[in-house]
Amino acid sequence: MRRGNLVLASDSPALHTDQYELGNLQGALRSGVASRLAVFELFARRLPEGRRYGVFAGLGRLLDRLENFRFTAEQLRWLNETQVADAGTRGRLEGQRFTGDVWAYQEGDLYFPNSPLLTVVAPFAEAVLLETICLSICNWDSGIASSASRMVTAARGLPITEMGTRRTHEEAAIDAARAAYIAGFSATSNMEAGYRYGIPVTGTAAHCFTMAHRDELTAFRAQVASQGPETTLLVDTYDLQQGIRNAVAAAGPELGGVRIDSGDLLSELPKARQLLDSLGARQARIVLTGGLDEYAMDELSLGAAGGFGSGERLIAHPSPGFVYKLVAIADSDDPEEPLRRVSKRSASKLSLGGRKWAYRRFDASRFITAEDLLVSDSAPESPPAGLPLQERVVGEGRILLRRSVEEARAFHQQAKCRLRPEQLSIQAGPPAILARPSEESP
Amino acid sequence: MRRGNLVLASDSPALHTDQYELGNLQGALRSGVASRLAVFELFARRLPEGRRYGVFAGLGRLLDRLENFRFTAEQLRWLNETQVADAGTRGRLEGQRFTGDVWAYQEGDLYFPNSPLLTVVAPFAEAVLLETICLSICNWDSGIASSASRMVTAARGLPITEMGTRRTHEEAAIDAARAAYIAGFSATSNMEAGYRYGIPVTGTAAHCFTMAHRDELTAFRAQVASQGPETTLLVDTYDLQQGIRNAVAAAGPELGGVRIDSGDLLSELPKARQLLDSLGARQARIVLTGGLDEYAMDELSLGAAGGFGSGERLIAHPSPGFVYKLVAIADSDDPEEPLRRVSKRSASKLSLGGRKWAYRRFDASRFITAEDLLVSDSAPESPPAGLPLQERVVGEGRILLRRSVEEARAFHQQAKCRLRPEQLSIQAGPPAILARPSEESP
Repeated sequence: MRRGNLVLASDSPALHTDQYELGNLQGALRSGVASRLAVFELFARRLPEGRRYGVFAGLGRLLDRLENFRFTAEQLRWLNETQVADAGTRGRLEGQRFTGDVWAYQEGDLYFPNSPLLTVVAPFAEAVLLETICLSICNWDSGIASSASRMVTAARGLPITEMGTRRTHEEAAIDAARAAYIAGFSATSNMEAGYRYGIPVTGTAAHCFTMAHRDELTAFRAQVASQGPETTLLVDTYDLQQGIRNAVAAAGPELGGVRIDSGDLLSELPKARQLLDSLGARQARIVLTGGLDEYAMDELSLGAAGGFGSGERLIAHPSPGFVYKLVAIADSDDPEEPLRRVSKRSASKLSLGGRKWAYRRFDASRFITAEDLLVSDSAPESPPAGLPLQERVVGEGRILLRRSVEEARAFHQQAKCRLRPEQLSIQAGPPAILARPSEESP
Repeated sequence: MRRGNLVLASDSPALHTDQYELGNLQGALRSGVASRLAVFELFARRLPEGRRYGVFAGLGRLLDRLENFRFTAEQLRWLNETQVADAGTRGRLEGQRFTGDVWAYQEGDLYFPNSPLLTVVAPFAEAVLLETICLSICNWDSGIASSASRMVTAARGLPITEMGTRRTHEEAAIDAARAAYIAGFSATSNMEAGYRYGIPVTGTAAHCFTMAHRDELTAFRAQVASQGPETTLLVDTYDLQQGIRNAVAAAGPELGGVRIDSGDLLSELPKARQLLDSLGARQARIVLTGGLDEYAMDELSLGAAGGFGSGERLIAHPSPGFVYKLVAIADSDDPEEPLRRVSKRSASKLSLGGRKWAYRRFDASRFITAEDLLVSDSAPESPPAGLPLQERVVGEGRILLRRSVEEARAFHQQAKCRLRPEQLSIQAGPPAILARPSEESP
């Protein structure tokens, strides 16, 4: 179902890169570091304030981009014109493609502070250029998925439609719909997301449709004539109570649903339910939209709500703040040379050096108890207890493992069941766990 | 300089549309409203909390998208498969292109509550489909430009580089760089933005570059060998003071600059300046980065800063909250029929019906005093006092007026001079003015 993406995917993402990466490469070619085997990890130092867990999303998109990550002749000409890269650097970039390995958590999995979500193992020259695109994709997609997952919890099984397109960049919107769907939203309003990724698409009606007609009842009749009585009518353009009466007048008691997009929803909801029932439209669902966040959904889902739409508050999510850090590098081109573990020591940005292997442990009820990080250059010969969280998704530059959006969605649902109810709470609290070095680490 | 955009631009944006727009269209075809002349306006009901003004950006991008806004045969097949649109609706969409007019404020202009930034005049069937793409582009681009403009004020003439790519979706990042440049940033770190839009691109060095070498001095020497002594060295990977000493040791007193990306910048800045001076590097600029917002820049620009980078806090900007509202529609297909003015009356979302013509008035010192809105179906025969703010940019579906990114940037700089210093303040306060109906309006 990725037909719409073909044009985009053939476009090289190589310039989706901060200039300093090319500067780094140029200096590294000079010093001999460019060819050294390097390990970069993508992780979050902490979760956004009060969050208990995060949701990793974006991996599928990143693999698509990685496959096309090479500099075109025209891009290289431009790097020359603008003197961003010298002749030696351009020569190195010409024909360069990624030849390394990528290990990753599954898309849809949970993460905690320090979880090594992505591990890139490649010559420094190749791995350093991927920083920006890895962070752009993972920060955006995981930020949306993490907020969406909280809304799904708060909605208590009621369906949520992603409706944020108008609130953000048109391309970001499509991938927000994808990430929200992975996190458990049931549909999106964005048609391109449906076309490109096969996500269910849904919609109701706009205020302008009502206003374009001489009166509300005429508008509702036109919508029912076009969509059938099972349609969802938008009832708050003028007066909510009158709107509901008009809706039932137009569609009859078999009216599918009404949407309310404004006002004090907590007090309007029971009144709307009562009125619909009194008019015989007992089956009509009440869909609520208009700046809803997880806290609003938490309250409203205890009442007569039939579903939610979320846009504005999903788009305005806190960033996961992922970083992409060099954690180990060889000090010579000798493939037998052990890697030197590196870490930054500047103020408040301390991080743990060395390549990490992550294992998750569970108690007898299958709830998560710990995430252990084993520091080792290569896969441990005798792995510790727990479920290994990383998969090799790229080997010597070739994509080894692709999972669909549906698989990521199913995986998230399953992963979320491994958190206790208090760890799924939307109220502010500490992270459910911290990923940390296991005792076996040297 | 839009070479990189060619592939994207040829891709139809028609599915960048919320599904309910198609539902609206289908109902409107049924009721006869689809062919009626309609006027939609894009505006903000209010500015984000405490803001004095907003900056309109995205128009150039929107015109590009509008030009290609048509449904492809493959998209129509998909609309059939997924039953989003019935046969009559698909028939209407086949070959449909925009045939209407668009009036707009200039890109880079200021806006205030109710400024009618975009006016779309077209048959309802065409105008209703543009809601989502108009809002996506204008909300994102104007949100970035509005926040960037405040940072430019706070930086007091010091250059600011846009560095937000890693914090947001990879395509949103490119257009964030464009919007920030329009608002007065001097450059971007995003190479694709340079390639696509001709924006100056700049960069320094990454922490991983330092860590990839055996020690900091070796790394700095490699960078200087590659970039020359006028390069900017990143000095806070391990110890800031030692980093500065290593920088001068590597580049000599002709060192171009240092970048500090962490720590308490207000206290580090004077110490760094003093140390650089004492080592003879009096010309070396100190570039500050790391989560800076306009308030930080306001304080730091009073000290020894030589420039800023901004990413995280620019990307996490408040949304302008633009809406795209039907304000007038004909009640028959007769071209002589006067338009019916419409407005929503639901809770807290009251808006002014009718098509608006905007004029800005100035005092003798050329500072803005008012923005008058004249409500009239057609251009007023005797316009009121003041500068007309809207231009016809699309006429009968053809782009009439395209301005470059450089023109938008120059226009913003000029428009900003029309605000008094207190109206440019970054401290919270009321909007400088409210756009409101002039007394001549009926």
